Amino acid sequence: MKIITKISESREEINIFRCVGKRIGFVPTMGYLHEGHLSLVKKCREENDIVVVSIFVNPTQFGAGEDFERYPKDMKNDTDMLQKAGVDFLFAPSAEEMYPTGSSTTISVSGVSDGLCGSSRPGHFDGVALVVTKLLNIIMPNKAYFGMKDYQQLQVIKRFVTDLNMNTKIIGMPIVREADGLAMSSRNVYLNSEERKSALCLSRSFALVHEAIEGGETEVSEVKHIVESFIKDHPHTRIDYAQFVDPETLKPVKDLSRDFLLALAVYVGKTRLIDNNLFKVM
Amino acid sequence: MKIITKISESREEINIFRCVGKRIGFVPTMGYLHEGHLSLVKKCREENDIVVVSIFVNPTQFGAGEDFERYPKDMKNDTDMLQKAGVDFLFAPSAEEMYPTGSSTTISVSGVSDGLCGSSRPGHFDGVALVVTKLLNIIMPNKAYFGMKDYQQLQVIKRFVTDLNMNTKIIGMPIVREADGLAMSSRNVYLNSEERKSALCLSRSFALVHEAIEGGETEVSEVKHIVESFIKDHPHTRIDYAQFVDPETLKPVKDLSRDFLLALAVYVGKTRLIDNNLFKVM
Repeated sequence: MKIITKISESREEINIFRCVGKRIGFVPTMGYLHEGHLSLVKKCREENDIVVVSIFVNPTQFGAGEDFERYPKDMKNDTDMLQKAGVDFLFAPSAEEMYPTGSSTTISVSGVSDGLCGSSRPGHFDGVALVVTKLLNIIMPNKAYFGMKDYQQLQVIKRFVTDLNMNTKIIGMPIVREADGLAMSSRNVYLNSEERKSALCLSRSFALVHEAIEGGETEVSEVKHIVESFIKDHPHTRIDYAQFVDPETLKPVKDLSRDFLLALAVYVGKTRLIDNNLFKVM
Repeated sequence: MKIITKISESREEINIFRCVGKRIGFVPTMGYLHEGHLSLVKKCREENDIVVVSIFVNPTQFGAGEDFERYPKDMKNDTDMLQKAGVDFLFAPSAEEMYPTGSSTTISVSGVSDGLCGSSRPGHFDGVALVVTKLLNIIMPNKAYFGMKDYQQLQVIKRFVTDLNMNTKIIGMPIVREADGLAMSSRNVYLNSEERKSALCLSRSFALVHEAIEGGETEVSEVKHIVESFIKDHPHTRIDYAQFVDPETLKPVKDLSRDFLLALAVYVGKTRLIDNNLFKVM
């Protein structure tokens, strides 16, 4: 695995393979890798000739007061994991390399970026759109892989990649969970042992929704009440949102008679966790 | 010259040449071509192996009440001109091909897009940024060529191409003028014979500025007054703006002791004309 920190070098190295017809696969990450990331890398390895992973904690997608400064890092462990996973290139640029003069350019996506994390984290998806556009333009992959834990992010990325005619296929991969159901996240490291227990309320609430649906319940307000009460019963939790939305538009659904996504953002202690589940309704 | 109307076909055709190392040059236009466009095509022909020209009257860069509906068209003549100029591919997509579902994505450039046409035509540069990004992502040229008559547009494009790490070099080419000095523009066809005479006030005002500067004048307000009075003395004219700006930032300059750009937008009858001149001060 070759580690590259410069944009120009990245272009040169990868171009060699592109121009002999090799398929380039790309997994953008913020590092502090876990099994969720590795599932993307594995899929990328299967589907492409050359696998590029980036590690870049992107300042423009963090808001004031968020955890940019303390976002966890372990470059040594990340490098080992990626090496073992058969990655060809690790692109790990500095913030100066990515934003030498900041950015005068903003990319905004309307519709799917409204609501949910778009409301809770103003400017977050603009920051994501900017850095993903930059990375896709630098790596120019045939396919890029993103986890579905960040479901809204995935929809935003698919939207602007289509709108801007970017020549990359965006692949969403299923959420990877710990044995007890907690969605894997680099931010799980922030949780103390009590919080770690409470954090199970997100994934466990999905079972309650299944039960309610199977019991014939179609009222959003009823099921929402069940979920919110369940989460609130767990110590140290504070609900940011618990929304039942259309899986395509991410607009709130009126009832639960068709497919819907339950999207959750819950503070557990000071840590903001997200999770979601797609419910297929007969 | 091959005429292509579909994005997928354009990708396929051009990819063949890209992947054998051919240099791809691109000239995006809105058609109704004149010698200004041809100067771009000529330079593009000189500097590249494959020359792609697009003709697309982009709806998203026109404001309400502007001339989108009546923008002049002459596909037959355009095609003949491009054929003679040695163009390899003419990309002429429909609006449906370019915007099958509209666009949820907006690209905005702060700084250089403020003021001048950015003030007079709200949303114009967002529309330009969107369509140029789409076209560059479709054609993926090594170099793309733009005229300096649209000086602010050129600065906006250079800015977002840099910010987004797009892999295309943006080349600005000098304004091409009629024998009497009028800057070539597809919109000149709107002018009746009286307006055509009045339209000379734009380019002729540059000589007055030269005179004033050589006479030692450095006060913006003085020279601006000379220019505005001169333009107003011509029948059917209405000044949109006459601004003395920094050639890089496009912010108004405080005095005329350093290099500056005089940027003009003047209605002649109902036709809005723009022109500009870079003044190099010793």
